[in-house]
Amino acid sequence: MRLREAARAIAAAAALGPGTRARLSSGGGGRAPMAKSKFEYVRDFEADDTCLPNCWVVTRLDGRNFHRFAEQHGFSKPNDDRALHLMTKCAQTVMQELEDIVMAYGQSDEYSFVFKKKSNWFKRRASKFMTHVVSQFASSYVFYWKDYFKDQPLLYPPGFDGRVVLYPSNQNLKDYLSWRQADCHINNLYNTVFWMLVQRSGLTPVQAQDRLQGTLAGDKNEILFSEFNINYNNEPLMYRKGTVLIWQKVNEVTTKRIKLPKETEEKEVEVARTRTKAVPLHCDIIGDQFWEEYPEILADS
Amino acid sequence: MRLREAARAIAAAAALGPGTRARLSSGGGGRAPMAKSKFEYVRDFEADDTCLPNCWVVTRLDGRNFHRFAEQHGFSKPNDDRALHLMTKCAQTVMQELEDIVMAYGQSDEYSFVFKKKSNWFKRRASKFMTHVVSQFASSYVFYWKDYFKDQPLLYPPGFDGRVVLYPSNQNLKDYLSWRQADCHINNLYNTVFWMLVQRSGLTPVQAQDRLQGTLAGDKNEILFSEFNINYNNEPLMYRKGTVLIWQKVNEVTTKRIKLPKETEEKEVEVARTRTKAVPLHCDIIGDQFWEEYPEILADS
Amino acid sequence: MRLREAARAIAAAAALGPGTRARLSSGGGGRAPMAKSKFEYVRDFEADDTCLPNCWVVTRLDGRNFHRFAEQHGFSKPNDDRALHLMTKCAQTVMQELEDIVMAYGQSDEYSFVFKKKSNWFKRRASKFMTHVVSQFASSYVFYWKDYFKDQPLLYPPGFDGRVVLYPSNQNLKDYLSWRQADCHINNLYNTVFWMLVQRSGLTPVQAQDRLQGTLAGDKNEILFSEFNINYNNEPLMYRKGTVLIWQKVNEVTTKRIKLPKETEEKEVEVARTRTKAVPLHCDIIGDQFWEEYPEILADS
Amino acid sequence: MRLREAARAIAAAAALGPGTRARLSSGGGGRAPMAKSKFEYVRDFEADDTCLPNCWVVTRLDGRNFHRFAEQHGFSKPNDDRALHLMTKCAQTVMQELEDIVMAYGQSDEYSFVFKKKSNWFKRRASKFMTHVVSQFASSYVFYWKDYFKDQPLLYPPGFDGRVVLYPSNQNLKDYLSWRQADCHINNLYNTVFWMLVQRSGLTPVQAQDRLQGTLAGDKNEILFSEFNINYNNEPLMYRKGTVLIWQKVNEVTTKRIKLPKETEEKEVEVARTRTKAVPLHCDIIGDQFWEEYPEILADS
Repeated sequence: MRLREAARAIAAAAALGPGTRARLSSGGGGRAPMAKSKFEYVRDFEADDTCLPNCWVVTRLDGRNFHRFAEQHGFSKPNDDRALHLMTKCAQTVMQELEDIVMAYGQSDEYSFVFKKKSNWFKRRASKFMTHVVSQFASSYVFYWKDYFKDQPLLYPPGFDGRVVLYPSNQNLKDYLSWRQADCHINNLYNTVFWMLVQRSGLTPVQAQDRLQGTLAGDKNEILFSEFNINYNNEPLMYRKGTVLIWQKVNEVTTKRIKLPKETEEKEVEVARTRTKAVPLHCDIIGDQFWEEYPEILADS
Repeated sequence: MRLREAARAIAAAAALGPGTRARLSSGGGGRAPMAKSKFEYVRDFEADDTCLPNCWVVTRLDGRNFHRFAEQHGFSKPNDDRALHLMTKCAQTVMQELEDIVMAYGQSDEYSFVFKKKSNWFKRRASKFMTHVVSQFASSYVFYWKDYFKDQPLLYPPGFDGRVVLYPSNQNLKDYLSWRQADCHINNLYNTVFWMLVQRSGLTPVQAQDRLQGTLAGDKNEILFSEFNINYNNEPLMYRKGTVLIWQKVNEVTTKRIKLPKETEEKEVEVARTRTKAVPLHCDIIGDQFWEEYPEILADS
Repeated sequence: MRLREAARAIAAAAALGPGTRARLSSGGGGRAPMAKSKFEYVRDFEADDTCLPNCWVVTRLDGRNFHRFAEQHGFSKPNDDRALHLMTKCAQTVMQELEDIVMAYGQSDEYSFVFKKKSNWFKRRASKFMTHVVSQFASSYVFYWKDYFKDQPLLYPPGFDGRVVLYPSNQNLKDYLSWRQADCHINNLYNTVFWMLVQRSGLTPVQAQDRLQGTLAGDKNEILFSEFNINYNNEPLMYRKGTVLIWQKVNEVTTKRIKLPKETEEKEVEVARTRTKAVPLHCDIIGDQFWEEYPEILADS
Repeated sequence: MRLREAARAIAAAAALGPGTRARLSSGGGGRAPMAKSKFEYVRDFEADDTCLPNCWVVTRLDGRNFHRFAEQHGFSKPNDDRALHLMTKCAQTVMQELEDIVMAYGQSDEYSFVFKKKSNWFKRRASKFMTHVVSQFASSYVFYWKDYFKDQPLLYPPGFDGRVVLYPSNQNLKDYLSWRQADCHINNLYNTVFWMLVQRSGLTPVQAQDRLQGTLAGDKNEILFSEFNINYNNEPLMYRKGTVLIWQKVNEVTTKRIKLPKETEEKEVEVARTRTKAVPLHCDIIGDQFWEEYPEILADS
């Protein structure tokens, strides 16, 4: 095969079209101006997956086989603080590294990211949204593992799946987030009772499951209270409500060594500055209060 | 909010539909049988992204901002063996952890994975293919980093993007892979000369770029030979051809300690077994020879 | 080929899934209970094209090669009342025969139909929306031709193309309709001057085009007024604004022959009843007034 | 609203992008060079629906509510020759007016059109394929009605729905067509017996349905033979096999009046010429014979 390159380089560069990236290879000095080879036609098989404009773009990820993962890494049950905090650290990293995310919501082994309605990040291509989110999340999970699990080794690299869903109206978006938080509530109440029955009452998992079959929320609250002296409403908010991440201005004071113009020696000074950070909250987002308190989330200017 | 659960649990379970997962939360005993809340309707906003049957499903990933990443981690130029081998290790992990991948091809900071035509993995949903691939690759990149970069620390968790493209015929698939390998060739030849001019001749990057503008492949070969005494064809195959991963049976001999029934002490014995592994090759895949040698790749029985 | 049918008929009927239609063939007594043949798998190649919920679904159709069609049928220029009224008759038929259309807007050889946000007609499949609209419009065009063109024969059956576009917000929908009405204005002003120059001033089409190149709206108004004594604002509203179709209650008085219980002979009586009809308006829909006057259009309850 | 036009006209024309049509309105002299108004953004909401390259594009249409339509127009049962021939006439019109259709197959109130694999008609947009097919078919149905139904009036304009399905391989395409022909066979056998039972044996439709429930093809053949002395295999091929339309060269002899150079009077001469027409066949397309006889259909050069 003869690859002719040069004479057509400028023409080719102009012709390369939307998929072309400026790229320097992993060790390269630059991407060669690329001539169109006879194989280039395969590019036309790539489908357009642009998200409809003026809709909220939600990307949700879920841990792959995290039941097994939790078993193998000895997660405490029904909730493991280290695991939940690591999830949130990864979500914060995603929010900081990617663009146009206005908020996130996480519970258990899942996290949802809300891109703003007007986002034009990567021309709103669905594949870009979901792959950037899950890959950044997955690499962060391994990267920050030791900050939360200390000496306990990570046994293998975990996987996550992701999807993109569009919501046209603010109400649809709020209902989506309510759905996830309702899911958190239902599962956590169930799991809290289930593990009490197993850990404290010595039931087998199958026995615990049978015991709970057909019970209502009130029944479960009653079991917790009467048998284990637990008031479910006093359980940690993070377990019951999951984690909301929103952008907040925070004041940071850092110490810097600077040399003032007229002085000869460096001096330590405290520098205060305001940064915008993805801050975790564990509050209700089903009612109106949250949205009234943070109207800027839906403002989308 | 009152979440009624139980009486409708069985009906709800039957009604939950395709998106329902059996899941145990990160620390849970089980997913609660979920009643349909009034928010459930938001599920219907999820679009179907099933891949057309009987087509090759190709997922390609690319490093995000890997120019900067390579700079910051001191990758040697134009090729860094550690980085290339790490990429291949991640691709092997993807092939072993995911299903139905028949081969992969990688170069620079990109890797393509070919799922078999008849794959019905996750019902052929495009989002599942691409997010599982990139998340597994990304977590593996951090997980295996130290095996290739030893004491050199990873400074931050890298990101990757991914996409799914369908190819209806075997010829389309081969042309896709040829396109990527031709891209590897063009870029590597360019980068090899570029970095010689910068590293050995002391040109600035801009000067090197100017020098190469408009040159044909023959011109570049000539510069390499006459100015640097380098025969491009003797450069390592991995740089010039990239890396092909295919499934091969390999014989493994491992040593095990076993205790035979009638003996009292453990004994070391060698155990030979045949495993199927994703084996790297650095060969031409543009010509027919490769496909004739490995007909099982396209056989798709 | 042996087509086995019966024993599996009931099972098959249950298994046939979403695409199955109850149908009586063009002369048949019933669709036979269909066993799954070995060819049935080809159904899985049909892609889902469900429209995102909670969005306005707009279907626009355009005449195919209507320049030629207008020439061949001697349409008067720049506007042919018969042709415009026929278009509107077809659009009314579409609105009456199909479901969930809240309004329509037409000009020249195009018509847009707005399906309500909450429509679940044919499960919101885009292909259903667009093919039902264009086929009903096309058959109506031929069917009602003679009512508008009298003895002038229709020379051949015309074609139309169609598309579906989603608009998430009311503002988006209003802007879409404004875009079409602005298009009507721009084209009609241009065409009015153009044909004056050709028909009255004797310019060739090319000369008329040259004369108009680069002119602003004000320039065109000035030409009309100074050269042809035409005040553009007095041109018929239907030409300048196009046609809006909305549902209106209208009182109809019809004459029926009935026989009252105690009488022996039939008697003619007038029967008044209120019907809902698709009524044409030729008004501005870019400003707020229209939408304030007809708030029920966007109400979508 | 101020619509500025001229100064930006050339720039706008260049910027208008893929959706722009050259169009002369139904009575216009030309489409005005259009400036981008502030409403133009709504164009970006139109989704790309390009069909995957190198796949057979099949568009199938079905009559809407044709059971009712058949009743109201007194179609004879189980098959009405006039209706079937009209369907085929419409399909021929579609093949002649549209581009790149290599064959069609019809039965009952449905017709499938196969566009060639390499077709780039309207850039392979699915909406163009399906709306052009159904609109041309629907207008032809009304236009040619009187040629088949003579004095019997068409009571109202009929509707059709349509869809587009992609088939990657020749085998998939053949299986699709086999599926439709098998459907024709099953339904026609059922309907033939059903209407014999109703028309000759005086059963009610419900009784006929009960009688046929659970019967195999052999049972139905037996009923036809023993009770009505009908050998199903002698029924007309058009009923049993449906109609295949393929392009065939046909010799046409037409009579023209011409004046030869040296003669003074016109003379009638016969002119023979070869035309390519969409010719109907009523043969089996499930077996190999048809495809071996007409290899050019799948050749797709």
